Amino acid sequence: MSLELSKKAAAVKPSSTLAITAKAKELKAQGKDVVGFGAGEPDFNTPENICNAAIAAIHDGFTKYTPASGINELKSAICNKFKSFNHLEYTPDQIVISNGGKHSLTNIFTALINPGDEVIIPAPFWLSYPEIVKLAGGVPVIVTTTKEQEYKLTAQALTDAITDKTKALIINTPNNPTGMLYTEEELRAIAAVVVEKDIYVVADEMYENLVYGEQKHISIASFGKEIYDRTITCSGLAKSYAMTGWRIGYTGSSKEIAKMMGSVQSHQTSNPNSIAQMAAVEALNGPQDSVKKMHTEFDKRRRYMYERICKMPLISTVEPMGAFYVFVDASQVLGKSYHGETVESVAKMADILINDFQTAVVPCGDFGFDDHMRLSYAISIEQIEKGLDRIERFLNELQ
Amino acid sequence: MSLELSKKAAAVKPSSTLAITAKAKELKAQGKDVVGFGAGEPDFNTPENICNAAIAAIHDGFTKYTPASGINELKSAICNKFKSFNHLEYTPDQIVISNGGKHSLTNIFTALINPGDEVIIPAPFWLSYPEIVKLAGGVPVIVTTTKEQEYKLTAQALTDAITDKTKALIINTPNNPTGMLYTEEELRAIAAVVVEKDIYVVADEMYENLVYGEQKHISIASFGKEIYDRTITCSGLAKSYAMTGWRIGYTGSSKEIAKMMGSVQSHQTSNPNSIAQMAAVEALNGPQDSVKKMHTEFDKRRRYMYERICKMPLISTVEPMGAFYVFVDASQVLGKSYHGETVESVAKMADILINDFQTAVVPCGDFGFDDHMRLSYAISIEQIEKGLDRIERFLNELQ
Repeated sequence: MSLELSKKAAAVKPSSTLAITAKAKELKAQGKDVVGFGAGEPDFNTPENICNAAIAAIHDGFTKYTPASGINELKSAICNKFKSFNHLEYTPDQIVISNGGKHSLTNIFTALINPGDEVIIPAPFWLSYPEIVKLAGGVPVIVTTTKEQEYKLTAQALTDAITDKTKALIINTPNNPTGMLYTEEELRAIAAVVVEKDIYVVADEMYENLVYGEQKHISIASFGKEIYDRTITCSGLAKSYAMTGWRIGYTGSSKEIAKMMGSVQSHQTSNPNSIAQMAAVEALNGPQDSVKKMHTEFDKRRRYMYERICKMPLISTVEPMGAFYVFVDASQVLGKSYHGETVESVAKMADILINDFQTAVVPCGDFGFDDHMRLSYAISIEQIEKGLDRIERFLNELQ
Repeated sequence: MSLELSKKAAAVKPSSTLAITAKAKELKAQGKDVVGFGAGEPDFNTPENICNAAIAAIHDGFTKYTPASGINELKSAICNKFKSFNHLEYTPDQIVISNGGKHSLTNIFTALINPGDEVIIPAPFWLSYPEIVKLAGGVPVIVTTTKEQEYKLTAQALTDAITDKTKALIINTPNNPTGMLYTEEELRAIAAVVVEKDIYVVADEMYENLVYGEQKHISIASFGKEIYDRTITCSGLAKSYAMTGWRIGYTGSSKEIAKMMGSVQSHQTSNPNSIAQMAAVEALNGPQDSVKKMHTEFDKRRRYMYERICKMPLISTVEPMGAFYVFVDASQVLGKSYHGETVESVAKMADILINDFQTAVVPCGDFGFDDHMRLSYAISIEQIEKGLDRIERFLNELQ
């Protein structure tokens, strides 16, 4: 008998982005004029038609248990979206609706992993990936990409990382934190390795609606039966429809995996919020004009930020083509002196920016890239302008 | 490399209650007059003041991420409830708000268990307990109680079941499926063993508001610091406020465990639905008259069912004092003949009842008690009357 707690749970890293966010909130509460580049959610309201569908569901008394893996109406709406947008054929029994993207990933790795199985995660990565894999009993294998490859995994690097313990690969496109998109060619090369080596691929496509310029979002599962069978495609409503608080994510997978995930979910959490499911049906089946409006606004901000950052000293970036983040290489800042103090890390730089410039940025150590920072453009263009002015002033003060 | 899926997830038992429910639905869809005693949720609508609070939250744009473990306003409301109703002092940093009771249990066992740790589960038990423990890497140790003990664990039986691998005990009061309540004396004896042997106790008090007659609901954590420190008290809004579809559960625990659960939840699912959290604030802080109305109605049905069942041949029950279930001993039915066919199990009896009498009951094999069935009274008194008439007819036809 002992009161020792779970070693696995104790090893979970608290998110460093939360520390910055907390500091920013504290300063705001003190009345300081803080600019927060940390936002991981759209700064728009959930569109009115979606809100109205939720209110109708409440009035209709749609407030009871639903099937654990979600209502059929939403599964059908998701299948239609998969078909028209992703060119993927899924039937409702291949869909599991969860409490958001993180929950879908938790279900996936609970279904896939036996203790010690390895999961390949290209760095930079969204910081919850390694923690979710570890909590499911897996071993994250981090494969670091380079700026020259636009922070994308190559087929060769994937091949080199595969061992006889590899169970799966995570591909996140459009990418958080880099804003990069994988091209069809790149994804086909990766798919060939996945099929040849007989592993699974977890395709996190949460930001699929937020793609700018000429390039199109491609789903890796769309390249044929062999890769389709090995892919779990993961998406959600949060980012595309400004529905972060509603908590609806979903997966498309083989029937076998869907059944297993549904079974796990039936015991671990049961159905996602019934009202949010009805809201999600409206989001997917209803008019899409508010999505287009948000997209236009994000694109305007993206272009402004990219142009400004390109002109700044000591920092640089690859033009982001998706999501709502700019991934900034700050390696040239390291070693410089700020008021006699050496800026030895991007974490240190973030500290200075929040304390002396009231500007919150996300240092990317927890995203697997120590010398970069992430700037979100899910804030108004006025805020972006003010924040970038401050960052520029900081950079100009460095010696 | 292999595509083999998780052994742990593959071993999850699909719920047998779902099979009966599916069959009942199928018959209803065919226009049959089915009586369903399977319901695990109140047959009332979510009270209007709670619905209005949710609608206000939507209008206010309260549809964004919240802190992962829940909003402070709800944590405070929960602390107040713990204090006034359970005589438990918790501060907001001891509270974790989750996506429902199952999710709270998943968080708890993720935080407590190292591989191979044993969790003592008195039988009969709510069927998700063993599955949740196994998914967290633990080993369920089932301790069967007896009808003479009113299906409750004794301190002696607990002592006998503890090994050097025991990490925790689950105590569910009021109990699903039995409807029994632990008395203060019984709980104090169990608490003494828990403290002496230095294990945790997970107190599932989901049905705490549904207690009938003179007896009161008692929280095991209320007996002093030593047992308080070792208890994770688990409850939710679903059963008390007819909010099953909203998915809000919560725990009170030590700060250390709360922090760990919050950290796990921040990666695995993030915050529960933001709108449901605001609805829950109103549920706990608002007028409680609809709770009283539901309670009165449940109590009326309970007394009617108990009286009827006592007069029936071959089946018997202990008077249920909590939740909305009657746990029926059908052992005398086994071996009897129905139209020349032997009724060799309660599962068989349930099959006959649904097929020949359009009456769905829950055989309790998956609850750890093969020769019992569970009848829910979360259906109208008219339905109960009709269903009991049918069960009586079935019993009278046995030879």
